[in-house]
Amino acid sequence: MVQKRMTPKKAAGKKLSRRHLLSSMALGAAASTISAPALASGKRTLKMVTTWPKNYPGLGTAPEKMAKRISEMTDGAINIKVFAAGELVGAFEAFDAVSTGTAEMYSGAEYYWQGKSPAFNFFTAVPFGMTAQELNAWIYFGGGQELWDELSATFSIKPFLSANTGVQMGGWFNKEINTLEDFKGLKIRMPGLGGEVMRRLGAAAVSLPGGEIFPSMKSGAIDATEWVGPWNDQAFGFHQVAKYYYCPGIHEPGAGLSTGINLDVWNELTGSQRAIIKAACMAENESTLAEYNYKNASSLATLVSKYKVQVRSFSPDVMKGLKEASDAVLIDIAGKDAFTQKVYESFIASLNNSMEWSKWSEEPYTRARRQI
Amino acid sequence: MVQKRMTPKKAAGKKLSRRHLLSSMALGAAASTISAPALASGKRTLKMVTTWPKNYPGLGTAPEKMAKRISEMTDGAINIKVFAAGELVGAFEAFDAVSTGTAEMYSGAEYYWQGKSPAFNFFTAVPFGMTAQELNAWIYFGGGQELWDELSATFSIKPFLSANTGVQMGGWFNKEINTLEDFKGLKIRMPGLGGEVMRRLGAAAVSLPGGEIFPSMKSGAIDATEWVGPWNDQAFGFHQVAKYYYCPGIHEPGAGLSTGINLDVWNELTGSQRAIIKAACMAENESTLAEYNYKNASSLATLVSKYKVQVRSFSPDVMKGLKEASDAVLIDIAGKDAFTQKVYESFIASLNNSMEWSKWSEEPYTRARRQI
Repeated sequence: MVQKRMTPKKAAGKKLSRRHLLSSMALGAAASTISAPALASGKRTLKMVTTWPKNYPGLGTAPEKMAKRISEMTDGAINIKVFAAGELVGAFEAFDAVSTGTAEMYSGAEYYWQGKSPAFNFFTAVPFGMTAQELNAWIYFGGGQELWDELSATFSIKPFLSANTGVQMGGWFNKEINTLEDFKGLKIRMPGLGGEVMRRLGAAAVSLPGGEIFPSMKSGAIDATEWVGPWNDQAFGFHQVAKYYYCPGIHEPGAGLSTGINLDVWNELTGSQRAIIKAACMAENESTLAEYNYKNASSLATLVSKYKVQVRSFSPDVMKGLKEASDAVLIDIAGKDAFTQKVYESFIASLNNSMEWSKWSEEPYTRARRQI
Repeated sequence: MVQKRMTPKKAAGKKLSRRHLLSSMALGAAASTISAPALASGKRTLKMVTTWPKNYPGLGTAPEKMAKRISEMTDGAINIKVFAAGELVGAFEAFDAVSTGTAEMYSGAEYYWQGKSPAFNFFTAVPFGMTAQELNAWIYFGGGQELWDELSATFSIKPFLSANTGVQMGGWFNKEINTLEDFKGLKIRMPGLGGEVMRRLGAAAVSLPGGEIFPSMKSGAIDATEWVGPWNDQAFGFHQVAKYYYCPGIHEPGAGLSTGINLDVWNELTGSQRAIIKAACMAENESTLAEYNYKNASSLATLVSKYKVQVRSFSPDVMKGLKEASDAVLIDIAGKDAFTQKVYESFIASLNNSMEWSKWSEEPYTRARRQI
């Protein structure tokens, strides 16, 4: 789903310091200089910049719904004005805008900030990483939130999980992918760490914003692409320009989307307002995943029955190759600095814990239910 | 997990009417006669009766956490006092207490009210039914909440999902279950619809409250038992009285727990208070599932490494027999009245939708990740 690849910047130092991390910020601004009006006076409007097109299904509607929830819960005391990407600042400037106080909140995906620190990838999704449920387990109970708070605080931001796409699809292809050889020379739109996995398998992975994918597929500038899943992909019409729809999307097995709040603004809020925003993020995280799960199913049925899309599974050999390349990519980014290594280790420990449980619970249950 | 079996009462009529359903209520009381103080005056304390032991991990701590959230979000305007089972009313009297206004809220599991209508089963869990994620998809986006509202409104209750245990375990056994024959004559503690499945396979399924299971296993009064999953089961010490721990728990593949609010009380609340309670229920639903997923994994690891519990999977033949018996049980309860049939059909349609999606997404992803 990543809209644009950001090359992880090699961290010069190993220690996570505010000074070090701020030095890598695009805007080069100093700490937040926001001068917020006192909240005691009553109603307040917070600007929320997003990395999403206006009202884009799921990704873009989630922050709108959350803003409505927060306004209702605070009886209008907090009114959140949501800006689509480009309306106030560009998609990838959302983080800096909140860090420096140009806006009070953002809705985005943490891996868009991987140029600040590669550790941000783990709070969205990494190849062969966590599903949505596993990410929730790590963030809420496995120490993930504490590490994320520590990382984001160096940018004057308080972060929350606030949506999840669930397991994404592996992508749209015009030829079958039967062996790892089939990736060689393939011009595929796959940004971020997934793109790096593709490159290690010999593909020419490129980055394109969502809106440019369809024409690029149509013109043959690219041979293949990933985006999100059936619900979002059908909206872009990829079934008109590609024949095979591969699963599963190992590059983003459960992409967590996030809300960030300027830390000074967060600290100025009353206790009840903080509790409301926290609960609103959790509620939207849950609701969005349920919506993706429900609508992906219906859209997939339409793609197959109406548009004759051929759904294919990656073979065990292809999955093995993808896993090995993914593991290598993660180890490489973890090695970039001590803090990212610490996040990686916490993430992997929680993932191993979750895998041991899913092996005896959801996986055998859903498999048996389907096979009978 | 069901604590006590309630035999579904055969509905005399086919139409879901308030009169009909009220006639089956244990207390025989009429509609809510609660005379609540005006809320405009400020702070208000709501009594929440629960079906859980005091501070029982997950089940009992979830309503306590939710009460705290709501108090924080309303800045103390709504203070919820949580009562464990038996403190104010007995576990299975919680529904009637809220329906008649003795208490304002309950925390429980809807299948405990199956004596009022068999349709309630579908809002918790049914054998070979939905996982937690699938239940959320149906309730929030597949029409489930609307049917549940209609059913509960006949008892003057507004219901919400507010927790989920995730996939439960299949139970503790002192002999291996290799074929369906092994269930014959087995004295197993498995209440509710799961118990009915067991009976159809020749087992002598019995109902026992949680606290009576351990001594009954120890004395040999029963041969086997189910409860919830590793986290809760370890707390009861079942590893001391049984050798084999079977998975998965097909009888409750994702038990949704619920909060009910007296409908008159709900209607008296302000818009912001209603929005807060709704979001608090969603947040707790998400948080509890994450907690179960996280802690089940750690507890299972302890059971295996420290207590040498032998984890076993039901064989494909056993799973097939369990599925066939489960399907038959569901068809039978659906046939009890027209409203239950309607709920069953909505549930099955959403389940089929979800299964078509999980087949291409989470199931192949988690399987491939484990196998490599």
